[in-house]
Amino acid sequence: MKPGMSLMKHYLQFKDLRAEEYAYLFERARNIKTRFKNYEKYTPLVDRTLAMIFEKASTRTRVSFEAGMYQMGGSVVHLTTGDSQLGRSEPVEDSARVISRMVDIVMIRTYEQTKIEQFAAHSRVPVINGLTNEFHPCQILADLYTWLEHRGTLSAAGVDLSCLKGRVVAWVGDGNNMANTWLQAAEILGFTVHVSTPGGYEVDPVVAGIASSDCYKVFDDPREACRGADLVTTDVWTSMGYEAENEARKKAFALWCVDAAMMAAAKPDALFMHCLPAHRGEEVTADVIDGPQSVVWDEAENRMHVQKALMEYLLLGRIG
Amino acid sequence: MKPGMSLMKHYLQFKDLRAEEYAYLFERARNIKTRFKNYEKYTPLVDRTLAMIFEKASTRTRVSFEAGMYQMGGSVVHLTTGDSQLGRSEPVEDSARVISRMVDIVMIRTYEQTKIEQFAAHSRVPVINGLTNEFHPCQILADLYTWLEHRGTLSAAGVDLSCLKGRVVAWVGDGNNMANTWLQAAEILGFTVHVSTPGGYEVDPVVAGIASSDCYKVFDDPREACRGADLVTTDVWTSMGYEAENEARKKAFALWCVDAAMMAAAKPDALFMHCLPAHRGEEVTADVIDGPQSVVWDEAENRMHVQKALMEYLLLGRIG
Amino acid sequence: MKPGMSLMKHYLQFKDLRAEEYAYLFERARNIKTRFKNYEKYTPLVDRTLAMIFEKASTRTRVSFEAGMYQMGGSVVHLTTGDSQLGRSEPVEDSARVISRMVDIVMIRTYEQTKIEQFAAHSRVPVINGLTNEFHPCQILADLYTWLEHRGTLSAAGVDLSCLKGRVVAWVGDGNNMANTWLQAAEILGFTVHVSTPGGYEVDPVVAGIASSDCYKVFDDPREACRGADLVTTDVWTSMGYEAENEARKKAFALWCVDAAMMAAAKPDALFMHCLPAHRGEEVTADVIDGPQSVVWDEAENRMHVQKALMEYLLLGRIG
Repeated sequence: MKPGMSLMKHYLQFKDLRAEEYAYLFERARNIKTRFKNYEKYTPLVDRTLAMIFEKASTRTRVSFEAGMYQMGGSVVHLTTGDSQLGRSEPVEDSARVISRMVDIVMIRTYEQTKIEQFAAHSRVPVINGLTNEFHPCQILADLYTWLEHRGTLSAAGVDLSCLKGRVVAWVGDGNNMANTWLQAAEILGFTVHVSTPGGYEVDPVVAGIASSDCYKVFDDPREACRGADLVTTDVWTSMGYEAENEARKKAFALWCVDAAMMAAAKPDALFMHCLPAHRGEEVTADVIDGPQSVVWDEAENRMHVQKALMEYLLLGRIG
Repeated sequence: MKPGMSLMKHYLQFKDLRAEEYAYLFERARNIKTRFKNYEKYTPLVDRTLAMIFEKASTRTRVSFEAGMYQMGGSVVHLTTGDSQLGRSEPVEDSARVISRMVDIVMIRTYEQTKIEQFAAHSRVPVINGLTNEFHPCQILADLYTWLEHRGTLSAAGVDLSCLKGRVVAWVGDGNNMANTWLQAAEILGFTVHVSTPGGYEVDPVVAGIASSDCYKVFDDPREACRGADLVTTDVWTSMGYEAENEARKKAFALWCVDAAMMAAAKPDALFMHCLPAHRGEEVTADVIDGPQSVVWDEAENRMHVQKALMEYLLLGRIG
Repeated sequence: MKPGMSLMKHYLQFKDLRAEEYAYLFERARNIKTRFKNYEKYTPLVDRTLAMIFEKASTRTRVSFEAGMYQMGGSVVHLTTGDSQLGRSEPVEDSARVISRMVDIVMIRTYEQTKIEQFAAHSRVPVINGLTNEFHPCQILADLYTWLEHRGTLSAAGVDLSCLKGRVVAWVGDGNNMANTWLQAAEILGFTVHVSTPGGYEVDPVVAGIASSDCYKVFDDPREACRGADLVTTDVWTSMGYEAENEARKKAFALWCVDAAMMAAAKPDALFMHCLPAHRGEEVTADVIDGPQSVVWDEAENRMHVQKALMEYLLLGRIG
């Protein structure tokens, strides 16, 4: 941490930041994205190094963090399990102590949330959750930004998050890390998640780490969950780390495919989102993901812009 | 693409550029190499990011592109199959859409040419072929540059490619991606390739993608192919992706070893080239590759210089 | 090598540099570390590229070299065995010729010392040993720096290495690459190593490459080796590359665990060092490595600072 910064912050789950911090981050992301699109150089992180530790493979998280850091003038050390599996050759705490002596910020993609918490507890520098079994806060950060962007509510004058209050997000599919993170976001920002999962794949409010169950409603029928939604979103039936369950999941999830009928049940201007990679014909039909309501490519690109804002905030605090 | 650039270009095979564009590229490569040798900083690609996607391993392509990009002020994201196998977890088109939103240029080394063409068709940024089963245009770019350099025809006054007209390149060995690319180069630049391959390993003009067969002559006897050649070149008997055929190839290729007798059949000042790695005693004898006519180390180094010129051209268009 | 530099130097073992060069390096490391801690930008290696070749996995060596190079303004190409196994697809000499045409400095972590020597013999640029079966000079460089730092003998006025003369380092455990390198350091800098290894794991002065055996004393009892020591240090029982011997080693090394009794035998202000990763309960007890005499985290961090000084020296010679 640079002298002058008050308290070091980690970003391990969505609720690690407050609503006003999100308003700030979205405004910074808008600013940073605008500069990028104008080929305007902006390198506040010169001389800073990001270590990325991947215990699960990734394209989007890898490219968005790495290219984003370079664009901000910084450098990246990319560690994979081949280089260093956290907790195998030495305790996670020791890796945290050593790595955080040499770099300025750390992003970790791993299995258990407890592992990233252990790392953060012994790190001298900010740690970002790049996906765990329990949470995926950077993706929801991008999704929310994309939502605001397509609602036209981002401007240089600042971001007013009150436009999200009372809105409905339909989550169709696995009660996984994405679903958990949507619940945290709903609780903090005041919208509601309509959750429909197959039996046995429900969200667990304890795992999701929410204070009350006011922020979501459960629906057996996914089409009911979509009714009146502002945003419909889903994820692959089998997330990384659950490949052994693939066959059972294919059967259980057969009806949890976002199709034209589900989109028709939502509001006419509802958006479709997917954190990708997508399996057309499984969790979403081609006509939906490749159709006019889908904003999945903007959503993917926005990972980079929001994460640049996040790294700037964790490393430099509020600018100006 | 920066605003102001006209049409985005990819470099997927040699014939994607015209002769006058090659004259420009060789002059830029000379300029860029001279600066490099003089420790003169030249960083026109500051703020630009290259994504490299390797589905086949590589040292030369890896180091030459990556170090070249750094020297020009840019950054590199290096993706291997472990990170992302094109077409496995998502359609190639989706990977192209996502990656090309985050970086400025993409280099791909893969198996089928169709895969790189699919990627390019959905990419927002230029795509470079870093080797496919069918083509290896960056290597021939380096070979031609090395040829001109050793002929003394490169100067600050510009490059006159007419000195290549009527010249003879002897290709000894596999009718592979290198051979195909030599044929395209011969057709565009007006020289002739003498091709000698074992039976069953012939070049296929359809695969090579040439307009007529005027640019090459076939010889059963490799020594005959070398007769009067200005340049003798070969490649390993078993290229990457064909390892299962290794034993059969060793038998078939036994006589296609570039040795002193073949070099003696060529012009007295003929050059020997090899894209490396080389297996001394198989496709070339040690006395040839380590002898005075061999320019293989310059050829390897020149990969970096020509690729820097290529990236500059694809990203910034003609300079000055 | 930049014009103006006299002779190119490699750093393949500790004795490749002289005592006065070490005094210079430690003073530079102090200077560079101070700037780093003050967020003072210092980028003398702008435009220089380091190639790192890892044939054995690594976290510390990887992060310390890579982050260090970035902090000095340079770039890094990170090659693993997947990209290029030295000596497999081509002779080591060929890899050296090609890679050293494209980058400015090379770090290699491999098995046999002969391999790195072969590489260096055909390299146009400096080569650094990042660990071999025989030596680990960068680690000892960091250990010595940490020792001087904790003795309070580093200052802007320069480093006087005479404070090390007559001092005692206790080496408890495997007669491995670390032990060998300690012996070379002792011979050059005038201290003594008390070595205690299980039978069958002795240091071999021929392998260690020392001129005489005056620089070390052998003890059967590890506690005797620690008596009066200024510094107690050890390493894992089974280093990388010796995993097959793990069970036999666990039995043989059972008594070679640095514990409170051994530290009590050393001087009251003795330091404890470990190159990490550490296996608490095997080669060291938790109360020692996590206790007040342990300087292992500083030692790990100092890898980065001394290596920055080393790269600066090999690339630019003496500054100012």
